[in-house]
Amino acid sequence: MPLTEAKPDASASALRHLICDPEMAFLMEAHNAISARIAGEAGFKALWASSLTISASMGLRDANELTWTESLDLVSAMVDTVDIPVLMDADSGYGDFNILSRFVRKACGRGVAGICIEDKLFPKINSFAPVKQTLADIGEFSHKISAAKDNQTKDDFLVVARTEAFVTGAGMDAALERANAYVDAGADAVLVQSKKSVPDELVAFGNAWDRDVPLIAVPTTYPDVCAETLQNAGVTNIIWANHSMRASIEAMRNVTKALFDQRSSAKISHNIASIEDIFELTDMKDLLVAGEEQRAGQQDD
Amino acid sequence: MPLTEAKPDASASALRHLICDPEMAFLMEAHNAISARIAGEAGFKALWASSLTISASMGLRDANELTWTESLDLVSAMVDTVDIPVLMDADSGYGDFNILSRFVRKACGRGVAGICIEDKLFPKINSFAPVKQTLADIGEFSHKISAAKDNQTKDDFLVVARTEAFVTGAGMDAALERANAYVDAGADAVLVQSKKSVPDELVAFGNAWDRDVPLIAVPTTYPDVCAETLQNAGVTNIIWANHSMRASIEAMRNVTKALFDQRSSAKISHNIASIEDIFELTDMKDLLVAGEEQRAGQQDD
Amino acid sequence: MPLTEAKPDASASALRHLICDPEMAFLMEAHNAISARIAGEAGFKALWASSLTISASMGLRDANELTWTESLDLVSAMVDTVDIPVLMDADSGYGDFNILSRFVRKACGRGVAGICIEDKLFPKINSFAPVKQTLADIGEFSHKISAAKDNQTKDDFLVVARTEAFVTGAGMDAALERANAYVDAGADAVLVQSKKSVPDELVAFGNAWDRDVPLIAVPTTYPDVCAETLQNAGVTNIIWANHSMRASIEAMRNVTKALFDQRSSAKISHNIASIEDIFELTDMKDLLVAGEEQRAGQQDD
Amino acid sequence: MPLTEAKPDASASALRHLICDPEMAFLMEAHNAISARIAGEAGFKALWASSLTISASMGLRDANELTWTESLDLVSAMVDTVDIPVLMDADSGYGDFNILSRFVRKACGRGVAGICIEDKLFPKINSFAPVKQTLADIGEFSHKISAAKDNQTKDDFLVVARTEAFVTGAGMDAALERANAYVDAGADAVLVQSKKSVPDELVAFGNAWDRDVPLIAVPTTYPDVCAETLQNAGVTNIIWANHSMRASIEAMRNVTKALFDQRSSAKISHNIASIEDIFELTDMKDLLVAGEEQRAGQQDD
Repeated sequence: MPLTEAKPDASASALRHLICDPEMAFLMEAHNAISARIAGEAGFKALWASSLTISASMGLRDANELTWTESLDLVSAMVDTVDIPVLMDADSGYGDFNILSRFVRKACGRGVAGICIEDKLFPKINSFAPVKQTLADIGEFSHKISAAKDNQTKDDFLVVARTEAFVTGAGMDAALERANAYVDAGADAVLVQSKKSVPDELVAFGNAWDRDVPLIAVPTTYPDVCAETLQNAGVTNIIWANHSMRASIEAMRNVTKALFDQRSSAKISHNIASIEDIFELTDMKDLLVAGEEQRAGQQDD
Repeated sequence: MPLTEAKPDASASALRHLICDPEMAFLMEAHNAISARIAGEAGFKALWASSLTISASMGLRDANELTWTESLDLVSAMVDTVDIPVLMDADSGYGDFNILSRFVRKACGRGVAGICIEDKLFPKINSFAPVKQTLADIGEFSHKISAAKDNQTKDDFLVVARTEAFVTGAGMDAALERANAYVDAGADAVLVQSKKSVPDELVAFGNAWDRDVPLIAVPTTYPDVCAETLQNAGVTNIIWANHSMRASIEAMRNVTKALFDQRSSAKISHNIASIEDIFELTDMKDLLVAGEEQRAGQQDD
Repeated sequence: MPLTEAKPDASASALRHLICDPEMAFLMEAHNAISARIAGEAGFKALWASSLTISASMGLRDANELTWTESLDLVSAMVDTVDIPVLMDADSGYGDFNILSRFVRKACGRGVAGICIEDKLFPKINSFAPVKQTLADIGEFSHKISAAKDNQTKDDFLVVARTEAFVTGAGMDAALERANAYVDAGADAVLVQSKKSVPDELVAFGNAWDRDVPLIAVPTTYPDVCAETLQNAGVTNIIWANHSMRASIEAMRNVTKALFDQRSSAKISHNIASIEDIFELTDMKDLLVAGEEQRAGQQDD
Repeated sequence: MPLTEAKPDASASALRHLICDPEMAFLMEAHNAISARIAGEAGFKALWASSLTISASMGLRDANELTWTESLDLVSAMVDTVDIPVLMDADSGYGDFNILSRFVRKACGRGVAGICIEDKLFPKINSFAPVKQTLADIGEFSHKISAAKDNQTKDDFLVVARTEAFVTGAGMDAALERANAYVDAGADAVLVQSKKSVPDELVAFGNAWDRDVPLIAVPTTYPDVCAETLQNAGVTNIIWANHSMRASIEAMRNVTKALFDQRSSAKISHNIASIEDIFELTDMKDLLVAGEEQRAGQQDD
């Protein structure tokens, strides 16, 4: 019964334009608001809110240990911090079509510009975990895509369908059959996951793909791929899906170890971001100015 | 009316022992569960859950923009991830003695081992922000310390009183008067904040301090201080209050910029933590083993 | 930096129209989604999300024991359940102008149509509690109203200023001075609180009020007042501020006591709402139909 | 890695004693803290935190629309308000054994004394909804019980296994087979759900049950049953599973409709609980006394 007719939304439109444009687009992973802000300042035009890295930031495995409301609270903090759209990794949809429907309505309300759902069971487990994965029933998953589209409350909200056909070893025909079914069900874009160390599954899929729906790649296991290689195969979007978290782990380990070993910050404090950097990344100056204005205003009374 | 008699708690006891021991102890900042885990693996015996860095991770200023329930949800994730105690930065206590009382009961329940409250007004603003700060009324703040102690539900829960007397320019006599009043009110330890670039305020305070209550220093602005200098003045605890966040910012900026500029991960993916590192930091293997056991168990049925 | 230009919003517009219309309007209290739904089904055109009753539903006192993020999560559930607008009781604004600013942005995002803030300190305490109350500084509170208006992200979002001048014994001149200052600062409507057992303070205030800004009354302590009496004095909005909660307490006490005393539900189960009533109030049928459609769709595959 | 060895807990012990005692025990439904408090004041010795009624209070269907973290936040508010133990309805366990494991650790931490899980799939749907239900695999569900027991962090934490064998039409043999398997897996008590209008399934099951593990009945659809009838069949625990919510709905509907129709509170305000009742139910007086003591203490300074 809520007031839910879909309305225009600048953020969703920006993401749709970016993903659907034939130019190659790059999305940067963020796992909290400060990594989101850093990605925006670097020039990225959209963010990938990764389940792997958000879960890890909370000390949890990428296996739906975090509930979707916990995830959405964290993603909402990213959305509030940046002026670029956020594409949220929504795993396999958190349960059935009905749970996904509530999630989509809430995600739209919290400013998320689009979601990506993958054709695995609930709970899902990370695609790179050394374990046998099971694909969802194609009809049931297609119905979830329809349910997501039916429940979006913003016009250009993006529902990306991700197929794990290659990850599970189901192969090219299964990947194409599934991607086509998902587009028929309403998917706005297709993400093809691969865990090979070379991009050949993506390239072959891209060459075989004949729908007017954009393709997305996540080159985590084939990091050396050249963007042009993918673009020549028709893949027009690349997600750097976990690199900000991986950079932060490396750095935190090094600095933490140095502090522990040296029992002193003398050697490390001048080579890391400053307190002023933190203030800048959170617009502390704006608050100080506003506070001064308030006090000045009151003295006038 | 709840069942709130204080009970023994291993985590609180561990923190109390660490802080009260005459040996120099070091606490490492964490702003999320993964930085907490990294600090634990480096060997640190306790964590500092910093308001500055937790707020920044959520894109917010260190000025009570985050509510205490939001903060506690994040700190709870740290607590769940590590087997070392967490000392939580509780700003100026989030409001009056009554709000602080509910917070203390909830913090005890969520596994926090101790809290630190500072003698500023609500909302507080970060001590290093270039703005004039106001001290709380000494009687009112002492009453808040009593209220915190009265509401702890764990025997050894630690309430650290932090005085901002030096930060506000109130000087040594004020600092000593306040620290003494707070100990009289029940404080278990005293943290003396200074924003000078040398540790002389801490050293002078330590030399003048004659109570049998441990002292804590936060050498953010005097990073080159030698632990022995502080220890000779009677300061037996040092908090590295923001270094993990600062390390992560520097690293995320560099990697994000490189990915944006190079449109490729070829040059950076091999110099950052791996996906396997993330799996290890979240004990993914334990889940895979448990999953196998479950499937094996079911096949037996 | 977020995308925050104010946008049209049907819910905020509906509330604004209702409150500003010269016809007498009635707002019904709700403390959770089901009481909200019941009020909507009874015909009410807007809801009052009461701090007193929401706090009580959580076992807490109306003294900002609940954080504003906890409150907003609960109010958000109301908003999602009904197709009428929700006016949220925001106490004294949860802290300073800056905290209020973040709250207003989040409340707009979560679908709240308007807020009401009162000119007391933080933490506030309920106006009917037998305790001396202190008014906020008039300049500081006016600045908070400006801050709220500056941060709304929806065109017609309503900021109601509530003065406690009568509650604190400050009297008519203070009430008028404050209400005028708040309207000058941008308040969209004025709520005048009184705890007398007759409506004479409201009537006198209404007769003296000459601004083109609507007035709101909360006849909790003068329940026998006739709507026409208030309307003749220019008050065009009445809030039934706690009656749904009070009805539920009385009923739960009676039924709970009967179950305890009788050790049987035989005498009470047929005189209370049925399980089917709960299903209807949560649209269970819609889910069952959707589930059938999904299964039918899959069998076609 | 957390500090999770199971520790003694007064609340869990109280629940275990109550459920395992051969005397008939009655548990009262609560859906929020105030209904919990009312049940405690009526004399009940334990509470049932019902998914049906908690979901309804949030405007949601009893079909796992609410995430378990949302539910636990609400149940935690009940726990904090009363000094009697809370048995939490945990549906079918919220997903797989691993999700359930995290939930159990968090529920223990938040003060929940025991949980009940039922042998249906995820998401579950309410047992009284007119839809065909599917039972979980017996081996998989038994493993979930083991996982729950392995992850409890409080000695006497109670894991109740609920079988839906009768609800799904699987019949007596299935019910007994399942209940026995669940007890073998570690269940502390067995709840047998029935949706018949007479208690014959419960009576027959109780007569056939020969394990030294207590039985629990939920006489929602057979409200006229006499406690002695069940006790003679060996059922020693009865849950009034939704009656507080049902009483509140009836009362809120009546009062809300009267206010709407009469445009006046004159006829209803004196027949519902008073504002003072709300103050009493939230211990407002304690806060006022504490506030006076604080102010007195400060004036002495």
